[in-house]
Amino acid sequence: MSQGAAHPVLAQAWRGETVESEHRGSVAVMDATGALRLQFGEIDHPVFPRSAVKILQALPLVASGAAERFGLSDAQLAMACASHGGQPAHVATAAATLAQAGLDAAALECGAHWPGFDQATRALAALGQVPSALHNNCSGKHAGFVCLGCLLAQDQGADPRAFLRGYVQRSHPVMREVEAALQAATGYDLADAPVGTDGCSIPTHGIPLRQLALGFARVASGQGLSADHAAAALRLRQAIAREPFMVAGTGRFDTTVMQHFGERVCCKVGAEGVYCAALPELGLGVALKMDDGNTARAAEVVMAELLASLVARDDADHALLAPLRSVTLRNWNGIEVGRLSASLPN
Amino acid sequence: MSQGAAHPVLAQAWRGETVESEHRGSVAVMDATGALRLQFGEIDHPVFPRSAVKILQALPLVASGAAERFGLSDAQLAMACASHGGQPAHVATAAATLAQAGLDAAALECGAHWPGFDQATRALAALGQVPSALHNNCSGKHAGFVCLGCLLAQDQGADPRAFLRGYVQRSHPVMREVEAALQAATGYDLADAPVGTDGCSIPTHGIPLRQLALGFARVASGQGLSADHAAAALRLRQAIAREPFMVAGTGRFDTTVMQHFGERVCCKVGAEGVYCAALPELGLGVALKMDDGNTARAAEVVMAELLASLVARDDADHALLAPLRSVTLRNWNGIEVGRLSASLPN
Repeated sequence: MSQGAAHPVLAQAWRGETVESEHRGSVAVMDATGALRLQFGEIDHPVFPRSAVKILQALPLVASGAAERFGLSDAQLAMACASHGGQPAHVATAAATLAQAGLDAAALECGAHWPGFDQATRALAALGQVPSALHNNCSGKHAGFVCLGCLLAQDQGADPRAFLRGYVQRSHPVMREVEAALQAATGYDLADAPVGTDGCSIPTHGIPLRQLALGFARVASGQGLSADHAAAALRLRQAIAREPFMVAGTGRFDTTVMQHFGERVCCKVGAEGVYCAALPELGLGVALKMDDGNTARAAEVVMAELLASLVARDDADHALLAPLRSVTLRNWNGIEVGRLSASLPN
Repeated sequence: MSQGAAHPVLAQAWRGETVESEHRGSVAVMDATGALRLQFGEIDHPVFPRSAVKILQALPLVASGAAERFGLSDAQLAMACASHGGQPAHVATAAATLAQAGLDAAALECGAHWPGFDQATRALAALGQVPSALHNNCSGKHAGFVCLGCLLAQDQGADPRAFLRGYVQRSHPVMREVEAALQAATGYDLADAPVGTDGCSIPTHGIPLRQLALGFARVASGQGLSADHAAAALRLRQAIAREPFMVAGTGRFDTTVMQHFGERVCCKVGAEGVYCAALPELGLGVALKMDDGNTARAAEVVMAELLASLVARDDADHALLAPLRSVTLRNWNGIEVGRLSASLPN
């Protein structure tokens, strides 16, 4: 970042009739042939996609046969692609995934944190409990990694618990599978890409928005993926469309949008202002990054604006997106004090 | 905002060896004569200072004699300038302020929210309780407004409860006093300034950073203020220096910095990436605003960097500021994944 010209302002926070704060960023929309359909800002500099690429990271879970071997449901596959709020259904579903592989929460290496959904945190505190790794917003994704590791271990005749130890390390067979899927889908060579450690301890690889959008166009269309990855992408998209609550939770953008759009939109938030989406109807992939890393209020309104311009086709679609493109801000007395609005360049 | 050139990058979030996100903004450092000592970005466009100007808004509480009439302690005066975490001591002190004026939490018009300090929220939930207006981070400021209103009512022979109703409105005598103090201190005509509604329902007035920094230079030195406001500013600064916990709370930047620097630094965070500080030793005022409104991670590291360059004079000062200028980021497993660092232009 900071190289070259500043990125354009893509979202603004208004207080009354005044712009109080603003958010800059970049957007790429691609089709699966590699044609660029829309661009704001610079899109060839690597960015860490964080949790926005969970569906790409889950491809090996399905393609390997692990999801089938352990009998994972739609809800469990959706959870493998989730950044969830730690609500009871999320916790129970992650626990069930591990149980179906003959394991439990002790196998998870994502760490524990209080639920992202505030009411779930207060309910836990009211019971005198503390969170476990199952409450971690990445517990479903990690349960999926554990299933993949169990399959690899079983196929080698190894003890799954011993085999899985350290599965978050880049050099572990599970992460090597995940990285290979990410590289194949995005067409970006990860060998020399920047790498960092994500919140849940797995590697995150720097990938340009152009390549991320290409990866999501491939997920949207199947085009450009191997046959088994194309089938896995379709399976995961369908699971998410059927169980959108499991991908995020109460009041969350991804859940709200996909409860309405179903298989027409497969979107996923990432930390630090990243958002990606596959738009199967159009065969397009979307990737965006807010420079300042603001996800909840900046990346979301920009994604809502892009969906309104790319996908929405009737009043119901626009009615769903309108309050997400321009979010009313209220203070502690419930008084309307302003709004968050997308402000894409013409 | 968005007028003219982009503001410079003042802070960066690093993940591993890569800049993951960045924060742009503006800074003004002034002395009380109106001389500009330091500038980054554009400083003549009005910004909403939000809670950063609480000490200016508290000047009438002291200058009117209300603080003396109701016997407010250092802790209570510090609370009048606070954005606190809703910890038990904050709640008790705000309640005591109201009681000394013969009132209770029903007089507060700031609204209720769960404590900003997570452990306080979970402790409240564990007791099966919900927050009151006393837990609002602005409850101390509002208790001060109530005391000022009580004095005005008593002096008119009016019933305080009836008089106070609607004290958050710009047209109310309490807010007129507060606005006049803000205008006098900053030297900025608020009649035609942009105005918005703050989180706690009082008006917030758009004021350029240049004028905010001037206001804090005046608070730092007394110079340029009326005699009663100069005395009030000194009294408030001393109270904050003696009770820095009351201004913020456990783990908070303002509390940490002022517990160390005492009367040498009087700094105050505001929502949406605003920070102000009075530096009495130097007779300087500082005001900054991050474009993207990110307070906790962006405005704080920039303020720490400014304090290191302006105020720090020995190893102890630098040791205190070092982890605030470059904040180590750890993930849910406690693994170091990156850092937030100031990146002021040369």
